[in-house]
Amino acid sequence: MIGITLPDGSVKQVELGTTPMDVAQSISEGLARNVISASFNHETVETSTPLTEDGSLVLYTWRDDEGKKAFWHSSSHIMAQALEEMYPGIKLTIGPAIENGFYYDLDLNGNSISEKDLPAVENRMLEIARGKHEFKMRTSSKEDALNFYKGQGNEYKVELIENLEDGTITFCDHDSFTDLCRGGHIPNTGIVKAVKLMSIAGAYWRGDENNTQLTRIYGVSFPKQKDLKEHLALLEEAKKRDHRKLGKELELFTFSQKVGQGLPLWLPKGAALRERLENFLKKAQKKAGYEMVVSPHIGQKELYVTSGHYEKYGEDSFQPIKTPNENEEFLLKPMNCPHHCEIYKSKPWSYKDLPIRFAEFGTVYRYEQSGELHGLTRVRGFTQDDAHIFCTPDQLDAEFKQVIDLVLYVFGSLGFEDFTTQVSLRDPDKPEKYIGDPEVWDKAEEAIINAVQDKGLDYVMETGEAAFYGPKLDFMVRDALGRSWQLGTIQVDYTLPERFELKYKGSDNELHQPVMIHRAPFGSMERFVAILLEHTGGNFPLWLMPEQVSILSLSEKYEKYAQKVLNLLENDEIRALVDNRNETIGKKIREAEMDKIPYMLILGEQEEKDGTVSVRKHSEGDLGTMSVEEFSELIHSEIEKNSVEFNV
Amino acid sequence: MIGITLPDGSVKQVELGTTPMDVAQSISEGLARNVISASFNHETVETSTPLTEDGSLVLYTWRDDEGKKAFWHSSSHIMAQALEEMYPGIKLTIGPAIENGFYYDLDLNGNSISEKDLPAVENRMLEIARGKHEFKMRTSSKEDALNFYKGQGNEYKVELIENLEDGTITFCDHDSFTDLCRGGHIPNTGIVKAVKLMSIAGAYWRGDENNTQLTRIYGVSFPKQKDLKEHLALLEEAKKRDHRKLGKELELFTFSQKVGQGLPLWLPKGAALRERLENFLKKAQKKAGYEMVVSPHIGQKELYVTSGHYEKYGEDSFQPIKTPNENEEFLLKPMNCPHHCEIYKSKPWSYKDLPIRFAEFGTVYRYEQSGELHGLTRVRGFTQDDAHIFCTPDQLDAEFKQVIDLVLYVFGSLGFEDFTTQVSLRDPDKPEKYIGDPEVWDKAEEAIINAVQDKGLDYVMETGEAAFYGPKLDFMVRDALGRSWQLGTIQVDYTLPERFELKYKGSDNELHQPVMIHRAPFGSMERFVAILLEHTGGNFPLWLMPEQVSILSLSEKYEKYAQKVLNLLENDEIRALVDNRNETIGKKIREAEMDKIPYMLILGEQEEKDGTVSVRKHSEGDLGTMSVEEFSELIHSEIEKNSVEFNV
Repeated sequence: MIGITLPDGSVKQVELGTTPMDVAQSISEGLARNVISASFNHETVETSTPLTEDGSLVLYTWRDDEGKKAFWHSSSHIMAQALEEMYPGIKLTIGPAIENGFYYDLDLNGNSISEKDLPAVENRMLEIARGKHEFKMRTSSKEDALNFYKGQGNEYKVELIENLEDGTITFCDHDSFTDLCRGGHIPNTGIVKAVKLMSIAGAYWRGDENNTQLTRIYGVSFPKQKDLKEHLALLEEAKKRDHRKLGKELELFTFSQKVGQGLPLWLPKGAALRERLENFLKKAQKKAGYEMVVSPHIGQKELYVTSGHYEKYGEDSFQPIKTPNENEEFLLKPMNCPHHCEIYKSKPWSYKDLPIRFAEFGTVYRYEQSGELHGLTRVRGFTQDDAHIFCTPDQLDAEFKQVIDLVLYVFGSLGFEDFTTQVSLRDPDKPEKYIGDPEVWDKAEEAIINAVQDKGLDYVMETGEAAFYGPKLDFMVRDALGRSWQLGTIQVDYTLPERFELKYKGSDNELHQPVMIHRAPFGSMERFVAILLEHTGGNFPLWLMPEQVSILSLSEKYEKYAQKVLNLLENDEIRALVDNRNETIGKKIREAEMDKIPYMLILGEQEEKDGTVSVRKHSEGDLGTMSVEEFSELIHSEIEKNSVEFNV
Repeated sequence: MIGITLPDGSVKQVELGTTPMDVAQSISEGLARNVISASFNHETVETSTPLTEDGSLVLYTWRDDEGKKAFWHSSSHIMAQALEEMYPGIKLTIGPAIENGFYYDLDLNGNSISEKDLPAVENRMLEIARGKHEFKMRTSSKEDALNFYKGQGNEYKVELIENLEDGTITFCDHDSFTDLCRGGHIPNTGIVKAVKLMSIAGAYWRGDENNTQLTRIYGVSFPKQKDLKEHLALLEEAKKRDHRKLGKELELFTFSQKVGQGLPLWLPKGAALRERLENFLKKAQKKAGYEMVVSPHIGQKELYVTSGHYEKYGEDSFQPIKTPNENEEFLLKPMNCPHHCEIYKSKPWSYKDLPIRFAEFGTVYRYEQSGELHGLTRVRGFTQDDAHIFCTPDQLDAEFKQVIDLVLYVFGSLGFEDFTTQVSLRDPDKPEKYIGDPEVWDKAEEAIINAVQDKGLDYVMETGEAAFYGPKLDFMVRDALGRSWQLGTIQVDYTLPERFELKYKGSDNELHQPVMIHRAPFGSMERFVAILLEHTGGNFPLWLMPEQVSILSLSEKYEKYAQKVLNLLENDEIRALVDNRNETIGKKIREAEMDKIPYMLILGEQEEKDGTVSVRKHSEGDLGTMSVEEFSELIHSEIEKNSVEFNV
């Protein structure tokens, strides 16, 4: 008998050789039906693997990330079988599960395959699936494995096997198909009920552009047809909401090859949107006792040597800027903190002055390879809504909690209701990755965990995810399409104050070192706007909309009245525009809808006579006729209704 | 007889050999008494130089810059005479007039001289001056001149003479003194009535640090004792108003050796001041139809090759930023215009869309040698209140005038009442200094002159002072101490639109090239704040003050009432602080005066009981007791009274 520990801590005594599926059966029929993969002692196993020692077992269903991984990895085996049958002579290389599906990289070996061929492959895959073939692992000697693939003339698998140790080599068989494989499959092919092959791309063998170019086929699969349908609908919606597409349509930002990739240029509507976001945060920050500062976008290399940034990022970053006559070297600033430390150092402080909170919308520059750039979410220059709090150790808890309140206020005001947090701790096994004293790290990590628990936040702890200078609390929001995005961050730092020799005079008249908190509720203005665009599809909260109202005249005759309405609204701080073009009202409405303008006012003879406006709401339609004053009240009350209170 | 043309255009027939002083005499005795130097056919001459051909003559008095130059240059001769007498063996090198006085660079040749020795030199100078010795020019052969200084062992003068052409060498004699000299003196030493030797400094021969270090003695002199007194008082006041000193005292900005010289760090009060200035301008710009954009602080080298900035500044500027993996080169942006051109290019334009006005508070970086850096007036990174207007040629005149209106509004609002303008034109003899077509330059220069005349501005035209890409209009303000500063600038540019191939579709359906206007009313935020500090001595206009009111409690007992008054004022958008320290009211008032806070409110038992405040105004004293509401009205009406209307 062996002892199997389950996730709830209970221990089951079972016979030697019992499989994970047997354990599931012994718990309940229902569970057994849903279990599709398992791990034993933190290693992936098959549901059919006989267990031969005491250990901890986790059973996964489709709802678990590990379950999806096994599902998609198994699907790539099925795809490979279909492809081998339909395109004889192709050479398989690797075929992993990825975030949303799977792929297989193939050397087509003279065959050709295009997207129009994919439906036939899908059909053959479903046929194989319906055969309910079991996935069976078997071990192989290195010699046998090499001989097998040498016989096929598959130099890729041969290269893979050459790097493996004899005795660790396994194959997975199902139906007529076999593949070199480390394991982690669903019980049988029959669980796969829906398949979609998404696209064909090029990929270099082992990701190295000096190697052969292979063909990569991406796919996704599901246990129900309905899941596939939902997935495709979501992809369609995500495409429509792609911030790069919306940013262009709404004229928010652009890029220029000449200025440089990854360096956004904010167009007037985007710059105004960004300014509204900044003003919103400035107002809350003022209430919370922050003070704005301004620092340059470069600093001497020595500054970053002191801060440790140069040691960590120097070689992988934008290279130093030299001067013509003097032997000086500057760097584009990758972070604002070293500058704020120097501002702190510009005068002596007493404990009575603390906490001191320096805020700056500071634009920083970080080198990213061009292939990694993506719209506003992965850029080379971005503006952090940065601030650094310098406080006494006694003040740390209260300050950390106040920052959490500010982050929650920001999320609430912008419609991010669904979020989780991650406490990122250091990896104690890799001390070389971090700067600073282990005891100091312990204190900082403890402070964060305390604050999170005290505020009752939903959190996970991740070891090894800390910044090199300190642990942090990251906020992950889930957007309207269910995707998760990392937004704000709060970091405790005992290290920079030490490196910059920051001091304050305590009540004991001695010099002490302040604690520093780094925080950015938005994270970066660029990334935040991108996520907000994808979350809202461009239908921002009313207070934030570039244009809140479009005034549509029925004909040019009403131009003067339209202008009058515009002036009245502008006096009430409402952003409006007049569409006086000689176009049909139907076309004007359609275009205002396309531009996502929340309200349309239609003005004709009757409205001019009565001094009223006919109101339409975006995607909702007619709201009837009212006076300009009533409409103005409607706007302000909608904004008011959706606004959140920020209490310090 | 020869014909002498005077500045008013009149021509005087005089005998050959008549001197400028004779001409002055012939006009009036009074003029002759005041004339101290002259120029003939645009070359400096002595007032005693016989005129031997037809030509134009200008007579200068102390009130002219040319008159001061002759006065101070002559004074340096007198100083050199005194020094040669008192320190035998010293070697003279050069002794020019400068902006505010003169200096002489000397090789002391073993003598030593310190600031305490200067009064004796001044006394000897005045003694020489009282001798009313005439300054007399004489020519010398190169050989005689060389022999003279070789005999003295003065290798400096020998070096100077070796570089001169025989036949052009002149000396100036007065009393027992003689000096190699090109001329330009006052009639005699007696005109110098007051002398002050200011300081002693080191200077390298010919400004080259590989050469011998010389001793430089700075001095200033005047035709009246009273002028000297006023000058010294002004210097004293300027020292008190030095923006570097005030910036530190008022905690507006700081510098850090680690961040780098010439890179200001704005402290909270300075950043808030700057933001108020920016918001003030943003508001006016919005009214005038500008739209804000945001662009990155770097751009690819190619961007500046296109704009022409690289060709002009590349080698003398911050050097390119390389990337680790890709063969890319970026530059810190020295100007915002190339970025705004690329924003313009991001979509097609019709003539109906123009003018388009892109504004940005854009931080730019330009390399300056460390020795040339000075506080906020000469820095390596600064923020321009930049904007670029793209318009049709037909719109240029109106746009240029609207920009002038905006600049005048800014000056009026900030208390710069006294200003002149300079139209900077290209030097037609040096076409290699400029980019673009001469005809296009002609049109641009004409447009500026038209606008300036139409607005009735006081202007001078300066040839050769244009930017390399176009002519410009610069605004020079005179500050409270009578010093002149260059502030805002407006530039017309036909060149960048060509280099960037900017287009719009005209009413003829053809593509045309827009005209561009660059403009910055403040110039740079850094420089503007520096000048405003020196102009106002830190007593900014009330609307701009970091703190408008200091609430001083008579004792800690009134802390609660002080807090209540603070809240009332803050609700009325008045910036106030509470001084609740356990100090005497006298000390609190003195410190608030030092901090330049415009109003002080004194709160004690009576005030708390009556719900009133006792009001003191900065540097004026008691204004009596009033309610908080009355005081709030007082503040707002003072701001209102001094505010200027901006009409578009």
